[in-house]
Amino acid sequence: MKFLGNDMITLEDGVLKIDGYDARELAERYGTPLYVMSESQIVRNYRAYEDAFREYEKKTGKDFILCYAYKANANLAITRLLSKLGGGADVVSGGELYIARLSKVPPEKIVFNGNCKTEEEIVMGIENNIRAFNVDSISELILINRIANEMGAVANVAFRINPDVDPKTHPKIATGLKKSKFGLDVQSGMAMKAVKMALEMDNVKVVGVHCHIGSQLTDLSPFEEETRKVMDFVVELEREGIKIEDVNLGGGLGIPYHKDREVPTPYQLAEVIINTMMEYQDKVDLPNLLLEPGRSIVGTAGVLLAKVHHIKETPYGKWVMIDAGMNDMMRPAIYDAYHEIVPCVFREEREVVNIAGGLCESSDVFGRDRNIPKVKVGDILAILDVGAYGISMANNYNGRGRPRMVLTSEKGVYIIRERETYGDLIAKDIVPGYLL
Amino acid sequence: MKFLGNDMITLEDGVLKIDGYDARELAERYGTPLYVMSESQIVRNYRAYEDAFREYEKKTGKDFILCYAYKANANLAITRLLSKLGGGADVVSGGELYIARLSKVPPEKIVFNGNCKTEEEIVMGIENNIRAFNVDSISELILINRIANEMGAVANVAFRINPDVDPKTHPKIATGLKKSKFGLDVQSGMAMKAVKMALEMDNVKVVGVHCHIGSQLTDLSPFEEETRKVMDFVVELEREGIKIEDVNLGGGLGIPYHKDREVPTPYQLAEVIINTMMEYQDKVDLPNLLLEPGRSIVGTAGVLLAKVHHIKETPYGKWVMIDAGMNDMMRPAIYDAYHEIVPCVFREEREVVNIAGGLCESSDVFGRDRNIPKVKVGDILAILDVGAYGISMANNYNGRGRPRMVLTSEKGVYIIRERETYGDLIAKDIVPGYLL
Repeated sequence: MKFLGNDMITLEDGVLKIDGYDARELAERYGTPLYVMSESQIVRNYRAYEDAFREYEKKTGKDFILCYAYKANANLAITRLLSKLGGGADVVSGGELYIARLSKVPPEKIVFNGNCKTEEEIVMGIENNIRAFNVDSISELILINRIANEMGAVANVAFRINPDVDPKTHPKIATGLKKSKFGLDVQSGMAMKAVKMALEMDNVKVVGVHCHIGSQLTDLSPFEEETRKVMDFVVELEREGIKIEDVNLGGGLGIPYHKDREVPTPYQLAEVIINTMMEYQDKVDLPNLLLEPGRSIVGTAGVLLAKVHHIKETPYGKWVMIDAGMNDMMRPAIYDAYHEIVPCVFREEREVVNIAGGLCESSDVFGRDRNIPKVKVGDILAILDVGAYGISMANNYNGRGRPRMVLTSEKGVYIIRERETYGDLIAKDIVPGYLL
Repeated sequence: MKFLGNDMITLEDGVLKIDGYDARELAERYGTPLYVMSESQIVRNYRAYEDAFREYEKKTGKDFILCYAYKANANLAITRLLSKLGGGADVVSGGELYIARLSKVPPEKIVFNGNCKTEEEIVMGIENNIRAFNVDSISELILINRIANEMGAVANVAFRINPDVDPKTHPKIATGLKKSKFGLDVQSGMAMKAVKMALEMDNVKVVGVHCHIGSQLTDLSPFEEETRKVMDFVVELEREGIKIEDVNLGGGLGIPYHKDREVPTPYQLAEVIINTMMEYQDKVDLPNLLLEPGRSIVGTAGVLLAKVHHIKETPYGKWVMIDAGMNDMMRPAIYDAYHEIVPCVFREEREVVNIAGGLCESSDVFGRDRNIPKVKVGDILAILDVGAYGISMANNYNGRGRPRMVLTSEKGVYIIRERETYGDLIAKDIVPGYLL
């Protein structure tokens, strides 16, 4: 039995293994709830992009640069692993830029995104001589130029355009619609106006055009539409004598959360993007190509192991209560997201159950009406595809420490994030003297 | 100008003050984003409950105990303040029990809720001799009895019943519907069965009945229905010869997030609950009354101050970009929650704007199409009513440290939670040696 996208998972004699390690033993040794990240799966996902887009380099002589989207999972071991593999970084805050530099990502592979960059963040980006600030507004462009001037530097800028492409995904993660907060509108001429303003400035250098239309896309047509809209804008710029070195198409490729639904692979994505880019080869000097995948690099590599503590029968269904909760993994609560949930021991009998976390909130439910092999108190359940937007959104709600995380690799199992203690919950709190 | 529920806020010469402190100066001195908690408002909210429900003590000779719901905001200074005022604690995890004991809440004022209590948590509750475990399932009851037996102790148990009351609130925070994960069903006899099982056990003592139907209720009729269903069950138990000492009706009273909509006060809540309870005085010996308010104690006392870093005009509206984000305050992103947003300086001209945080996610928007006094880059905005479910759900998404929190009191302004640094983001991470 195989799980779509989770090549690191095998089922041997009814027992779930991750990179060959018995999941029950991992849960026993490291405690629950426990995030398990598979090195082999991350490497596989990363290499698929590199392989698929090498074709672009061959065809154009330009570079393909994969800037891993740190927001998906910025654990230092994961970011360092991806940096060692050759990956760049898409960062969206000073904190992520800090982690990227600690992970030894070369500055020329770092791009800085976001709609509200602060002065401190801009200083930090200039100090690090990053590949580009993806500029979100004219206000930001003016600020970057002013700060670079004060620093006696020239900042590289790319322009995030808003292409008004419907990504056909969850509204909370659709980012390229015209009413979105992101980017510079192309149709009204605002994007062009911004580029022309930049050309008049002394302390910025125009290097690229950037776009990102959303996350968890399972249809390739929005990517084709996006590529076309970006390249049309590049052609428009070229007509005005403005040469663009980098085109950054953002991220957004989905992963198979539903194990019965195939999603496009990086190879299929590459085919669409490269073919569309090549249509423009006679119109412009083709640019370097940057992408910012996050979910499709780490999402399928993560499993959340949790222990069943109580089972409750009610007239309206059976509830399986596990020790992971929405504080550990917010996606079901915030996006009504579906994650496959399987026991670590597959018994023959099956039953339909609801699976809930232990927080005092009705949205802390991981799955409803799931038909799974029968489970008992003490069993370990595996929630799949939690490598992206799992630990990165985890919090201390309900007075719960964030979970431990381990990395399974050929060399062994490594703790890559320690579990938070009760002391950590109050580590930043200070009680005024008169209240002691 | 006054803001409904926010008595600590005054507008003097167009400048916003919190407990008399100029909000701009607080932002300047302590940095943004900044949580400001008002001691006076917390005290006022707490005292309203104590005043309102004193009537129950007078009429019945029994106790009223306010168990503050820690999940709303378990900052140690806040919990200690409420403990000093005489408040008890509604805790839902070992972490919250730990904080309650550090806050010197007497054990007889602590109740332990939750649908997935672990062995460790049960041991901790028994060691602390808390007033009651609010038992959520038969599985849990059996575990508590077994652990108490091993410890040579007797654990106090109350039974959380599921009354199937529609609280008319957001589905994610409705907890008393029959398809909810919480509680023991009354109608099918499951709750009665659990109580009778407990009476046969040697290491648990049946002390109470518990119920909680949901959060942010703005209509009192569900509370009346809840009280009636709980008391009907108490009558049923009495007929079986089972005497109940405590009735705990949970929390749930709403606060006026919308400044043009009054919500019921604790006095109005008390009237409904006490009148309903008194209807039962000839049928049973009336019990002690426990409540678990959270939001209505701290919600209106909190303000999130944020600085405007960029303003972007688009053909589809104006965007005001602030340095607070969904990682600091999740409610708009997770519940589509409305929070009043006002500038700290009220200029005469008004305009309609969208207000967004700086995270790379479309749901990171605090308000759309808000008609507010005109703001400029560098201004400070105040997001109101963030004292509950603000910092408690905050996280490090997008590589952002959680914000600082200050307490405004008559004695001065105190930092009660320190801002997280870049170092804190990776404090729990460990890079395996072979990846260094």
